[in-house]
Amino acid sequence: MRIGVLGTGRVGQTLASALLRLGHEVRMGSRSAGNEAAVAWASQVGGPATEGTFADAAGFGEIVVNATAGAASLQALEAAGAEQLAGKVLIDVSNPLDTSKGMPPTLTVCNDDSLGEQIQRALPDVRVVKTLNTVTAAVMVEPSLVPGRHTIFMSGDDAAAKAEVAAILQEFGWPQDAILDLGGIDTARGPEMYLPMWIGLWGATGSPILNVEVRTAAPDDAAA
Amino acid sequence: MRIGVLGTGRVGQTLASALLRLGHEVRMGSRSAGNEAAVAWASQVGGPATEGTFADAAGFGEIVVNATAGAASLQALEAAGAEQLAGKVLIDVSNPLDTSKGMPPTLTVCNDDSLGEQIQRALPDVRVVKTLNTVTAAVMVEPSLVPGRHTIFMSGDDAAAKAEVAAILQEFGWPQDAILDLGGIDTARGPEMYLPMWIGLWGATGSPILNVEVRTAAPDDAAA
Repeated sequence: MRIGVLGTGRVGQTLASALLRLGHEVRMGSRSAGNEAAVAWASQVGGPATEGTFADAAGFGEIVVNATAGAASLQALEAAGAEQLAGKVLIDVSNPLDTSKGMPPTLTVCNDDSLGEQIQRALPDVRVVKTLNTVTAAVMVEPSLVPGRHTIFMSGDDAAAKAEVAAILQEFGWPQDAILDLGGIDTARGPEMYLPMWIGLWGATGSPILNVEVRTAAPDDAAA
Repeated sequence: MRIGVLGTGRVGQTLASALLRLGHEVRMGSRSAGNEAAVAWASQVGGPATEGTFADAAGFGEIVVNATAGAASLQALEAAGAEQLAGKVLIDVSNPLDTSKGMPPTLTVCNDDSLGEQIQRALPDVRVVKTLNTVTAAVMVEPSLVPGRHTIFMSGDDAAAKAEVAAILQEFGWPQDAILDLGGIDTARGPEMYLPMWIGLWGATGSPILNVEVRTAAPDDAAA
């Protein structure tokens, strides 16, 4: 499958490299073609890896991943272009972190809205699926780094899009029963507002290689 | 131990009854003495159960529990009185939910502040410990309702206060290694902003009898 990855940072590179290893063709997008990090990545990984502008990557992908910094995502997606993205699945893994006021970061949007919802409103013809933002990049593509069963969340308005994304999550190694569909894109507020908790867990445990397992009293979990 | 429980709702009644069963003396506090719910509770449970004003309950307790609705907690604690609470451990289990705009609720404070921090600032002589707000009332006092190991969080500036609260959590049945100290009271932002996620998990799983287990790649968790 052809996949466009928007963003050249640690998350974008980790996802792009993992997708390549899985046999996909990947184009990394950034503000301008020839971005130093993107060129270095493409030459390093070999294989069907290319780079270009946000619009190049969005137009290339059958599926597009938003791995830009959350505070800049709406701008990056505007540059990618609504026509390049129309009808496509957009996997939004970003967190709307504001680090301008020091640590810990706050969120640029929360409580009565979320970045996932903002993106869906800005691009009504795009099938936005929020996922993977609750784990660090390494765990996104290699969940077995965290021992035992643990949960990854998905939010989106389009059921078929979520099924496509679930298939990619399974390629990364997420077991089907570890993928929890929270509902529509408005449920992205939960995983996005979880970020301060995630930062607290990192601080308390000393390891960013962490995740949570959701446990309920439902009968099918009784043996867990 | 004498414990004052502020709040007559489901959370307050559940905690107060459980503390009584554990052998503590409990006084339930509300806006005015003779509150219908508090009187009914005290007559129902028997034992060393009394009721009175917020100030009565705060003055009675060696430890005080804030189980009032989060949106009204600062007012309730002002009524309880700084002098009645001075030097005491205040276990804050409240969530700053705003249901006035419909469902899902939003938070009255979040992102760059939390209710736990607001309470600590309002009552600098009180040893505030935020805990238990991430599970439903029934699970607070009977964690085994959720199968397997799962995690409860604690935030507070006073280490000795957290040790006292951890002892009470263990009386409720929380294993020592399930109690995760996140750090100072400023880390209460994490567990409070987790609420939209908790609501989403309830919606997705169909059960409020739920919690999360934190898993890390730390060596001592490798066998978990």
